[in-house]
This record gives sequence, structure tokens and C-alpha cells, in this order.
Amino acid sequence: MDTKHSLNQNVITSGPFRASKKIYVPGQLHDIKVAMREISLSPTILANGKTEENAPFTVYDTSGPFTDPDVVIDLKKGLSRLREKWIVQRGDVEQLPDFTSEYCRQRLIDPLLGELQFQHKQKPLKALPGRNVSQMYYAKQGIITPEMEYVAIRENQRIDIPGQQLSLQLTQQHEGYSYGANIPKGYITPEFVRDEIASGRAILPANINHPESEPMIIGRNFLVKINTNIGNSAVSSGIEEEVEKAVWSCRLGGDTLMDLSTGKNIHETREWIIRNCPVPVGTVPIYQALEKVNGKAEDLTWEIFRDTLIEQAEQGVDYFTIHAGVLLRYIPLTAKRVTGIVSRGGSILAKWCLAHHQENFLYTHFEDICEIMKVYDVAFSLGDGLRPGCIADANDAAQFSELETLGELTRIAWKHNVQTIIEGPGHVPMHLIKENMDKQLKECHEAPFYTLGPLTTDIAPGYDHITSAIGAAMIGWYGTAMLCYVTPKEHLGLPNKKDVRDGVIAYKIAAHTADLAKGHPGAQYRDNALSKARFEFRWEDQFNLSLDPDTAREFHDETLPVEGAKVAHFCSMCGPNFCAMKITQEVREFAEQGMKEKSEEFKSVGAEIYL
Amino acid sequence: MDTKHSLNQNVITSGPFRASKKIYVPGQLHDIKVAMREISLSPTILANGKTEENAPFTVYDTSGPFTDPDVVIDLKKGLSRLREKWIVQRGDVEQLPDFTSEYCRQRLIDPLLGELQFQHKQKPLKALPGRNVSQMYYAKQGIITPEMEYVAIRENQRIDIPGQQLSLQLTQQHEGYSYGANIPKGYITPEFVRDEIASGRAILPANINHPESEPMIIGRNFLVKINTNIGNSAVSSGIEEEVEKAVWSCRLGGDTLMDLSTGKNIHETREWIIRNCPVPVGTVPIYQALEKVNGKAEDLTWEIFRDTLIEQAEQGVDYFTIHAGVLLRYIPLTAKRVTGIVSRGGSILAKWCLAHHQENFLYTHFEDICEIMKVYDVAFSLGDGLRPGCIADANDAAQFSELETLGELTRIAWKHNVQTIIEGPGHVPMHLIKENMDKQLKECHEAPFYTLGPLTTDIAPGYDHITSAIGAAMIGWYGTAMLCYVTPKEHLGLPNKKDVRDGVIAYKIAAHTADLAKGHPGAQYRDNALSKARFEFRWEDQFNLSLDPDTAREFHDETLPVEGAKVAHFCSMCGPNFCAMKITQEVREFAEQGMKEKSEEFKSVGAEIYL
Repeated sequence: MDTKHSLNQNVITSGPFRASKKIYVPGQLHDIKVAMREISLSPTILANGKTEENAPFTVYDTSGPFTDPDVVIDLKKGLSRLREKWIVQRGDVEQLPDFTSEYCRQRLIDPLLGELQFQHKQKPLKALPGRNVSQMYYAKQGIITPEMEYVAIRENQRIDIPGQQLSLQLTQQHEGYSYGANIPKGYITPEFVRDEIASGRAILPANINHPESEPMIIGRNFLVKINTNIGNSAVSSGIEEEVEKAVWSCRLGGDTLMDLSTGKNIHETREWIIRNCPVPVGTVPIYQALEKVNGKAEDLTWEIFRDTLIEQAEQGVDYFTIHAGVLLRYIPLTAKRVTGIVSRGGSILAKWCLAHHQENFLYTHFEDICEIMKVYDVAFSLGDGLRPGCIADANDAAQFSELETLGELTRIAWKHNVQTIIEGPGHVPMHLIKENMDKQLKECHEAPFYTLGPLTTDIAPGYDHITSAIGAAMIGWYGTAMLCYVTPKEHLGLPNKKDVRDGVIAYKIAAHTADLAKGHPGAQYRDNALSKARFEFRWEDQFNLSLDPDTAREFHDETLPVEGAKVAHFCSMCGPNFCAMKITQEVREFAEQGMKEKSEEFKSVGAEIYL
Repeated sequence: MDTKHSLNQNVITSGPFRASKKIYVPGQLHDIKVAMREISLSPTILANGKTEENAPFTVYDTSGPFTDPDVVIDLKKGLSRLREKWIVQRGDVEQLPDFTSEYCRQRLIDPLLGELQFQHKQKPLKALPGRNVSQMYYAKQGIITPEMEYVAIRENQRIDIPGQQLSLQLTQQHEGYSYGANIPKGYITPEFVRDEIASGRAILPANINHPESEPMIIGRNFLVKINTNIGNSAVSSGIEEEVEKAVWSCRLGGDTLMDLSTGKNIHETREWIIRNCPVPVGTVPIYQALEKVNGKAEDLTWEIFRDTLIEQAEQGVDYFTIHAGVLLRYIPLTAKRVTGIVSRGGSILAKWCLAHHQENFLYTHFEDICEIMKVYDVAFSLGDGLRPGCIADANDAAQFSELETLGELTRIAWKHNVQTIIEGPGHVPMHLIKENMDKQLKECHEAPFYTLGPLTTDIAPGYDHITSAIGAAMIGWYGTAMLCYVTPKEHLGLPNKKDVRDGVIAYKIAAHTADLAKGHPGAQYRDNALSKARFEFRWEDQFNLSLDPDTAREFHDETLPVEGAKVAHFCSMCGPNFCAMKITQEVREFAEQGMKEKSEEFKSVGAEIYL
């Protein structure tokens, strides 16, 4: 075995989170079990010395089988094919005798690739002639698929568990402020999921060739999702490293993953990622197509692009970014911008259009693309090739013209029952964010919005996970369904594992903050559970309920490292005699002793003293 | 000399930022010179190989004399007394023969303190009998003080410089979205500054005993400011370390500084900080008063508190947090909260009220406090002792009742011409933030709002600089004048230097983002200058124009460390053949070659191809 190419499984992060176990909630309509993470909590110690149990807390879990100690992980075999039975049982697919893509077939017999090849590759599935296998198609037929029931259960995060229902007061009290008017007040039902997919307001990315993926949904009446990006580049990282980045970003909370590789062995790297990825995978096929013509945009052809689409669809890519809205007539609108065209896909297509003086071939072949997408259930992520690259270029004619075209293309995609989301900016100052969201909903007929940030200022390179988390939280509140993460290395370099963590957590914050503001059922339970733990000095529970338990624990231990400090009824900031939380507990005890009556009695006296 | 106590000046960070120099802009009304930082930029290399100069760029500078290589820093002597002449020339102050505070006099003769004492301590200034020395008093008399002219020049950031006027388009185009309706469209004039102070809409913190401070203004029609907190605690850091934290936070961009020390030698630590601090210093006097009664809240008295106020006023503290709105009758409103009272000051006073069954002595003695404040020009920062400590407690009756009382106290403070700002939350989900701001403006008669965050979720300990930067940016846009920073260690431990940096930069982002959204004149120039540098691959300029040049450079160098990469016309993310910015430059060249005509001509043909 060539050790240079052999996969080193030790680099993969696995095992459960502390105090957490994997649980599986069964379905009622289908024979499914929905993975979640259950966090055990310690009891509350009451003032009288007695204790009160705190029920275990369940959270949405994107980490896949890697956090289940009962599952044996073997990267060379890939994850178990969770959805395969559901797909085959629908009776509308066939397994092809070989891969359709000429490029793919060549790669598979290339002797030089050796250990880079994924050995357990299966032959692709495809819809039977004349059939459409998209979740949107099923939804419009009134069919609730196992995938739809899975996401319904998953979205509810078991808010039916006693103790988990701490409070919905806040969101219910302030409906006037809520942008989430369509969010159901109680549970999310499978029928609600179906209806949202049928209407196009949500998508369930589920390529029939990626059965390893655990179903999830992207739509503004569900939890706000986040996407993470990985991918090798010219100075490539190895395959293990890319797979570990994928596993690592899912572990931290990534809901979908885009493989943006532009370097060598893109096909093989993607195969390893998809076979081991528990979340939907997206790509920008034009990147690989460009590699096939040695980086010369003007040499791109529809035929090469088409083969690339099929190659990737048969590997199991769940959604494609397609920059079909970069029209020839919009290109001059970017000439006077401060930063022109900053989308790689957008600039490739702009260059092609200009070189040929022809309309964008993704636009002219859009219905051909739909025909490919619907026989594998690949979703469109209609790319914003003309998104603004700085504050000065936000919401300009180039950006909004393209958005209008994306709306036109959405209608065409829906005609073919191809699931569709719309990509958005970019760099936008706070006061222009809502205009983006409102225009997207209007022009794109409520198709889900999927935005990169937006960054709310240009002046903080090194901190763009923060400049963009501000914009992401706001646009998520206003209705964006999925937020594409930005790491601290944005504009500066390639993210390492720490950068991926910083980016993912910043975006989990933005997404959760948006869920709170929209009034998503259950969003506030976790805040309440953590704050209750904080108030009761249950330090370990506070860490374990947080988005990044390891970092919270590490920061605490920097100041008060001893084990005893984690059960102490005070903390490092104020010391034992000076703790606001401790004093409040005393206030509460006073209050229980009939304080209320005494203060009522005092009111008039108090007024006299002051006047 | 006792080395244990001798000051180690080497720990202090000083020297200019790279490619930057200190400049001093002269006044027109007064003999003043306003410190700013000028960043030199490299020329643009045009497509034809020629170069085009980029004018030096001027930015607001909070770093004080520490970044001026011509100034000799001697911590033992303190900074030069910039404002002393202005204060004395007004003819309304006298130098007292000794310190008024009994406690202060005792500390000064305590032989055990030794080298902890600041040797060059000067006797305090105080208003002549019957006189009021507050900037608000002067403003109401129609007087434009040197301090007022200073801040007018400072706020403009020299937008009158050629090349600095890149664009005001954005903010002017979208006035409908702007909350900054009162912000002048052109320059900020000294008269505008005076009027804002006279009306109470802004304060200029300027204790006559802190002449080292460079004037700055806090009000919603000016640049949004940020406050940083430092201070020792029971396990104290040394004096040098606290002074370095102060200098360090100003260097990074802190506009004011609160010394929240609760440990030993509070008086002496504060003296060193104030004497070496170029920005206004705030404190929470109740912390020190509590130390004087050995931490027993019930033993606090008006007399001890009064002596502490005078002690600190004569040292030069510029603003006091006074929790006078924690009324006895509001305390029971906190009993059913998830996290009760989380403000240290609030809980101390709640405990006192309950122990004595009396009204808060800060409320009953409020006019006595005003009498002290106005003879030194100490500003009120009316504390929000009942601010919410978690999402569930946001905008509740306890919080809003206190806010109403703070509005009542604002009127009383203004009657005495004492400058006043109002402290705000805390933990608030996004959809409830605007309600806070609107209520504060209404109840507190447009006195400036000064908020801690707010944190928009509770579930991310270790990342609360981010959870709160989201809330801070939004509330800054809605009208908050100053944002109190939160570090990643919030809720977990004491911040180190890295945490201070992370907190300050997150808050500079929030503040600047708010300035952009409000349409502050000049805010967008820096974004435009940086984005232009980015687009033109002027890497060094991009770093130098950023909020944290060192981090930006370090992140870039992690991926492409060689010096040549910083002048390369591509970057690490995509490599030389795949760069969106590079392709855009080609698009622009095409566009210049009459592309526009050709695309017009093409439009009808393109339509045919698609239909």
C-alpha cells in the first residue's frame, strides 16, 4: 500500500461530546429514526439543601454517526447508506450499468490515481425514463416522504419533553416584532414540511446518490441553517485533511457543506467527502469545468459543463451553484464599481460572455440543466455572480438586475419541479440589508434565500466572521433560510481548523439569534436552560449546553483551574464576597419572606423621604 | 527602591502603528491641536504601467501620546496636562490646599504604601464657591469651550482632505432607512457640538482633575463610541499590568475606560491609570465604598459613599456609574426572573434596601450627588442595576420601571447642569432591541444611551464578544451613543490582553457598522479606501487601513509568508489563474473598449437565442 496515499483515519475527530449521548427518535409515518444529541444535566441544589432534578436536554445534531460510539467509522467504506432503502422503495429509480460522464469513467480507470480512488464506489442511481425524483415533485403530489418526516421530527428538537418547555413567553408576547409570522406556534408537522417544499418556500436537498446524508430542510419557516465551505486549492491539502475538515465542521454545527476545491484531484477528493458526509454537499461545477479547460474561461463549452454536472450529480452532490443570472448586458454595470465582480463564478462567466460576445451559456441552456437536476434530485443554488464586494457597491443595479433574473429562472426551475434556493450578498451595510431580503422574497417568489454574510463593513480583515455575523443575524431574522459562513481568514488566506471553528460558531450564533427573533418554536429553551444553569452555578451544565463546550471550559479554567471552582457558588470575576448572582439569591429569599407586602407598605414612606 | 513595587515601564506598548504618523490639526477658535493618525498609502499601479498616487488617509485616534515617537513617556510623571491651561483660564476654579476626602488623606500618608503611591500627585481643582464647571453649563451659556472645538475637529476626521472624499453616495441615497436624521450632512461644527451638549443629547466627559484626557464626545449624532473595562480583582494583577491594559485598550480604539477594580489598593491603582490615561475614565464608586465596609452591603452609609465620590472626583474620574434607579419597590419584580439581578451595583443596593427596608440612598441623596458632580464636572452614567441577565428576562417590568426612574433623575441632573448618560442592557434578543432604544429616548429625554452589548443569545459562553457585537451594532444604529465592550471571557473569567483585543475590535466593528448605517459623515471613506486597496492588490495598504493591521498581516502571512506575495496581483485563496479580482480588471478593460455599445447591439440577438 502506498503510504503517501493511504488514508490516515486518526486525523478524524470522533466520539461523543462530554455529558452527551446520541439518541434516535422513531418516526410515526415511516420506519425511520432521527438522530439527536441528549445532554445530561446535574441537579439544582436548592436553598434548603435539597436537590431538584433537571431533565436531560435534547439539541439538534449535525455531527452524524461520528459522535455515536456504537458506530464503527471506516472512511474507506463510507458512512452507512441511511436513505438508500427509502429511495429504492419509491420504485422510480434504476441503477445504471456505468457512470454517464465520460470524464468520470476515465478517472476511474486511471492507473496513476491508485489509492486516491474510493474503492467502494457504487454505480449511480438515476430516475427511470420520464420520472422526476425530486422532493418537490413528491411534495406536489401530496406525498410525505421519509425525508420529510425526518426533518419534521428533527426541527422540533423534542420540545415535547418535560422540562424542555421552559418558556415560550417571550416570542409569543411580541408578535408585532416577528418576521416569522408563518412559523407554526406549536410543533412542526410532516404535512407542514411537505407543504413548504411543494410551495417552493423550502428545499430538502437529497440527491439520490448521496444516501449517507441525514435529511435537513432549508426554508425561512424552519430553523436557520448554516453552510460551511471547504476545499483544496493549488497548494492543496491532502484528502484526509479535507475529509477531517468536513467531519469537523459538521461536528461543530454545519448544516450543509460546500466543496469548493479548485486544485488537483477534485473528483476523487469529492468522492471521499460525499461518502463520509452526513450533511448535504454543494459544489460550484464551473470551478471543475474550468480546470478541465486548463483555467481558460473562454474555452468553456456547454458540453464540458454538461458532462461535469452529470459527473457530480452521479457522485451525489446535493446542490449546484449555477451562475445563470450573469447576463451579458449586466456586465458593464459593474465597470464603475469600487471592487467590480468578486464572485469567482461570476467573473469566469463574465469573461466567457465578453470573449464570445454571447449570452451566458448557463442562461441559454437553463432548461437543459433542469432536465439533469430532476433525475437525480439535485437542487439549484442560483448563484449571485454580481454580488457586491464592498460596502460602496451594495444594492446596486448590477446586483439587483441579476436578482431579477434569478427570479425568472426560479419559475423555470419550479416548472421542472427542481428545488431552488437563491444566493445573496456579500457586503451590505446594516441599513440596506432589509431591502435585500424584501426584494429577494418579491422577485424570487419566496424561494429560500442563502446569503454569504453579509459583511456590514469592509474595514476589519481578520475579523470578517464578526463583521458578517452581524449581517447574517439580521438577514436571518428578516427571512434568510441559510447563512454561508465566513471565517476570520476571509480576504486573507485559507482557513485552518481553528478558523473553521471560529467561523462555524459565529454563524451558529447568528442563526440561533435569528431563530430567537423570529420566534421559532423551541429556540429559546436552550437559552433558558443555559441561563438557569448559570444562575445556579452549575458550571459543567453551562459548558455542556453551550455552542462550544470545550472553549467555554478552557476559558473558565484559565482563571480558576481547580476542579472545585466548577462547583463553587461564585466565579472568578468577582470572588466569593462580591457576586451579583449570589446576592440575588439572597434577594429572592427575602422576597419569599413576604417582602412584597413590606415594600407596598413602604411606598408612601419612600416617597416622603425623597420629596 | 522596592523592586516589587517599582513600575516596569517596559510592559507598556508604545510607538506608532506601521506606516502611520501622529498629526496635529490646529483649531481656529482656540489655541488647540487635535491629535489624529495619518496612514500613508502606496500608489495604484494602472493597467498602462503608470502609477497614481493615493493621498494619505487620516483616522480618528484614541491612542494618546503613546503613539507619538516625539513624546517621552514617563509613567511616574504621567501624561502632559493638555487641558490644564484651558481649565484655569476660565477663571472659575481654585486649587484646594489639600484633598477633601478623609480616606484619600489617610492613604497619602500611609507609610506601608511606599512605591504604590503616585509621587507627582497634584492638589485637586474645584469650582469656586457658587460656580458650575460642567461643559453642559458652559454650553447652555453659549460658550464654545476649547474642548468643544477639539471634538468638532476630531469627529470630522479631516474629511476635507482631497482624496478622502471617496463617496457619500450610499448614505445619502437611502435616507429613508437612516436613524441618524439629525446628523449634519456636511461637517460637524463647534456650534453643533455646543448645541448638542446644551440640549443634553451629548456629553463631553471632562473632569477638571483629569486634564490629561483628550476631549471626546458621546451622543447619537456623533461617531458611536466604545468603552473598555479594566480593573484588578481579589486575585489582583499589578499596577503596571492595569496601566498597560489601559494603554493597550486605548491603542486598539477604546474611547473611554472604566476602572472596575474591586481588589486591593484601588485608590492607588486608579491614580496611576488616570495620570496615564488619554481618554475619559469612569468608575462605579459603590464598588470601592463596599470595600471600605469590608464587603457588607448593609453597612454602607451615605457618608462613606459621599466621601468616596469626592475622593474619586478629586482624582479625576470623568464619569460615575450611579445605580440610583434601583428602587425598593422594583426589587420584588426581579424575584421570578430566570437570572434575578446580575448587575453587581444593582445587587449591592438591592441588598442594602432590603436589609434596612429603606429607599435606595442614592435615590434619596440624588441632589446631594449632583452638588458634588457639578463642581468637578463629573458626568452621571445612571446605572441599570436591574438590567436583564438573560434572554428570558429582557424588557421586563423590573428593567423598564428602573428606566423610567432614570428618566426622572436625568431631569434632576440637568437642572444642576450635570452631564448625564443612561446605562442599558444586557441580554436582549434582536426583535426586542429597538423597543429598548425607543423607550430610552422617550423616557430619558434623549440623554445618550450607553449599553452593555446587548447579548442577543445566552448559548455561546466563550464567544460573547460576538453575541453582543450583533446587538451592539443594531442598538448603535438605532441611536445608542456608546457601547460597552464585552470580551470572550464574559461569564467565564478575567480577560487577558488577547481578550481585550478581541473585545475592542469586535466593538469597533459594531460602532463603525452603526456609523455606516446612520450615515455619519465620513464613516464610509475608510471602507472605500480599504476596498480600493484590496481591489488593486495593495496588500500593505489593506492591512494598514484595517482595524487591526497586525492580525490582518499575520493571517495573510500564514498562507503566503513570502514578502513577494504582498505585492502579487493575486492572493492565496484562488491562486494566479483563478482570481475574481484579476478577471474583473480584464472585464473593466473590455468595458472601456466600447463593450457597452456591443452589448446593446447584442441584446435582441441574446433574447432570440434564449426564447
